Amino acid sequence: MNYTFSKKVDSLKPSAIREILKFTSIPGFIPFSAGNPSPEAFPVNEVNEIIKDIMTNRPIDALQYSITEGYTPLRDRLKKYMTDKHSSFKEFDELIITSGAQQVIELATKSLCDEGDTIICEEPSFIGSLNAFRSYGVNLCGVPLEHDGINLEKLEHELKTQKNVRFIYVIPTFQNPSGVTMSLSKRKALYALALKYNVIILEDNPYSDLRFSGENVPTIKSLDTEGIVLYAGSFSKVLAPGIRVGYAIAPAQIISKLVVCKQVSDVHTNIMFQIVADEFMGQYDFDAHLQKLRDIYRKKATLMTSSIDKNLSKDITYNAPEGGLFVWCTLPSHVDMLDYCKRAIDQKVALVPGSAFIIDGNAPCSNFRMNFSTPSDEQIIKGLELLGKVSF
Amino acid sequence: MNYTFSKKVDSLKPSAIREILKFTSIPGFIPFSAGNPSPEAFPVNEVNEIIKDIMTNRPIDALQYSITEGYTPLRDRLKKYMTDKHSSFKEFDELIITSGAQQVIELATKSLCDEGDTIICEEPSFIGSLNAFRSYGVNLCGVPLEHDGINLEKLEHELKTQKNVRFIYVIPTFQNPSGVTMSLSKRKALYALALKYNVIILEDNPYSDLRFSGENVPTIKSLDTEGIVLYAGSFSKVLAPGIRVGYAIAPAQIISKLVVCKQVSDVHTNIMFQIVADEFMGQYDFDAHLQKLRDIYRKKATLMTSSIDKNLSKDITYNAPEGGLFVWCTLPSHVDMLDYCKRAIDQKVALVPGSAFIIDGNAPCSNFRMNFSTPSDEQIIKGLELLGKVSF
Repeated sequence: MNYTFSKKVDSLKPSAIREILKFTSIPGFIPFSAGNPSPEAFPVNEVNEIIKDIMTNRPIDALQYSITEGYTPLRDRLKKYMTDKHSSFKEFDELIITSGAQQVIELATKSLCDEGDTIICEEPSFIGSLNAFRSYGVNLCGVPLEHDGINLEKLEHELKTQKNVRFIYVIPTFQNPSGVTMSLSKRKALYALALKYNVIILEDNPYSDLRFSGENVPTIKSLDTEGIVLYAGSFSKVLAPGIRVGYAIAPAQIISKLVVCKQVSDVHTNIMFQIVADEFMGQYDFDAHLQKLRDIYRKKATLMTSSIDKNLSKDITYNAPEGGLFVWCTLPSHVDMLDYCKRAIDQKVALVPGSAFIIDGNAPCSNFRMNFSTPSDEQIIKGLELLGKVSF
Repeated sequence: MNYTFSKKVDSLKPSAIREILKFTSIPGFIPFSAGNPSPEAFPVNEVNEIIKDIMTNRPIDALQYSITEGYTPLRDRLKKYMTDKHSSFKEFDELIITSGAQQVIELATKSLCDEGDTIICEEPSFIGSLNAFRSYGVNLCGVPLEHDGINLEKLEHELKTQKNVRFIYVIPTFQNPSGVTMSLSKRKALYALALKYNVIILEDNPYSDLRFSGENVPTIKSLDTEGIVLYAGSFSKVLAPGIRVGYAIAPAQIISKLVVCKQVSDVHTNIMFQIVADEFMGQYDFDAHLQKLRDIYRKKATLMTSSIDKNLSKDITYNAPEGGLFVWCTLPSHVDMLDYCKRAIDQKVALVPGSAFIIDGNAPCSNFRMNFSTPSDEQIIKGLELLGKVSF
């Protein structure tokens, strides 16, 4: 049989990162291409204690069907936490538990976009989100990122000229892949522009709890007086990614559509780990846990940047990260970036070519992304020694 | 802000069953409306032992990111099991682990259907699937169900006259809601028709392991010599639904599209319970476990049908189930079914109105669905006594 696939999906390629992940799980490769949290960041003993308690005292709660909106105690806890700690849950908002923040991106796209509608995003941007957008046949419009966030003039130009813009997608803190954090003044200006042009902002914020230097910047959601921000949060980087627990905060009308879409997608998120996330935040010192993660990642990021300084040509520049999991590097413009990444593979060092994060993957690109959370300290040292051997 | 939603999603209503589930979780209601497995069917001790072992010996495996296709040992085990036990994994097939069988339905629809394409389904059919189809803006075409499966003449008429039919959706064994099992001869004829008209069959099979009387009927997938069957399986009814683990078997080309769609939806299914499912099948006697479930459900089904016989008017007819979780009842045609269900609620007995399973929810319908796996034995007895008081 000749299979015919939907037009929106037929053109979709598997994520380069996922493909590289599979490739670099081969022992012997230095996994700078991944985005996995460090295994030492997982609170294994605490999770073990919580699961023991659940399986002893209320196993049926963790095994039976549950409701699509999510485990009510976790929803209530997150509403309070996001209100008290980040001013990011408003009186008009609701909250849904999702199967990771990736599901927020998908549910938002499905709920808000018809085929041919436009989504504006930072460029470069997270490949998982770009592919989710593509999978609904939307028109993707990239706006260049600057050192302090999205280029506002170009953003307004696109808002003026593009048709049916349904939302602006941003990762304002420790952006993936660039590591850029949007300044507060740009966040305010972005919010004002979105309001002026009557467009929703999708704020994807998986990394902000992982700030290990510099000053916190308020979320865009915290500025949201008019109900135009859909916020995506996640336990992947602050608890564990394999559990697939994230959440969305948005005006109740939007959340109700996300609930309907989630119902037909996976009914509900696995309930055991919703309870685990709730109990972890309730029984343990969550702030102290986050502090521990910051210490782990500060150390690893510093090791990576000092190893870059020691081993790589000064012609390769990078942004010193203040948080998140990545270092974004720029090659001199005369260097063929894809060729460089291929020769890194020959040295058994896996990088992500920057073009993976660009809407037009064939456009010229001089960047590559390196991750410091997955490799061990030894791998970081060894990997950069090996990368130093790749000449150009 | 006035929110604008996508056309395909804007018209979608929350599932009546999910809404009723919420309603009937209020203590005091008899939950004949649910579809939950019986809590006594969950292998709590075994799951507890397996999780203990994982958290002691390889916690990182269960907490770290994993690959979209699913946990390789579980995939390999299911391929072998479905080959050896059900002849339902072919040499051209691949297998993906999903977040419940509901996700198979969604990924299949997204991968195979553009807006306006046609899906043919049995009528009545499972509301969760109907809503997943609706959420992609497809044209839904219902073909009446008979005592031995779909009406083949009407099916062929639709295959001839409908445009862009992308697949035929069937639940051939213990159909939800009707309980009907398609005869082997109809399965063969259905397969031949699908082949003739070059249309894929989506075979949704969550209940077949729960046969407690009568003879097993081979899956449609087992007849699939030409690679036209996409099979959806699930651990929800044979292990536990809260864990959200299901799977799809289909020709490799189709599975590769499902993988791409799953990647942008939830990256992967929670990995802990993929390992649990694998270890449960490997370490314990899965056949003996299924036999235990059959004994539980035979007893509960018999209690429900004997209580119907004892309490309800003989004018209410039903199909005695040979498996699955439901009894499908038919009221005399002069009775207002919705009014009957409302008056059952007054007696604190929750039923699902049959119209929930019909494409045109406003079409005349004389059926209601009762579930025997969720209520306790006492609730079954009490519930049917109460339902007997609802006159017509």
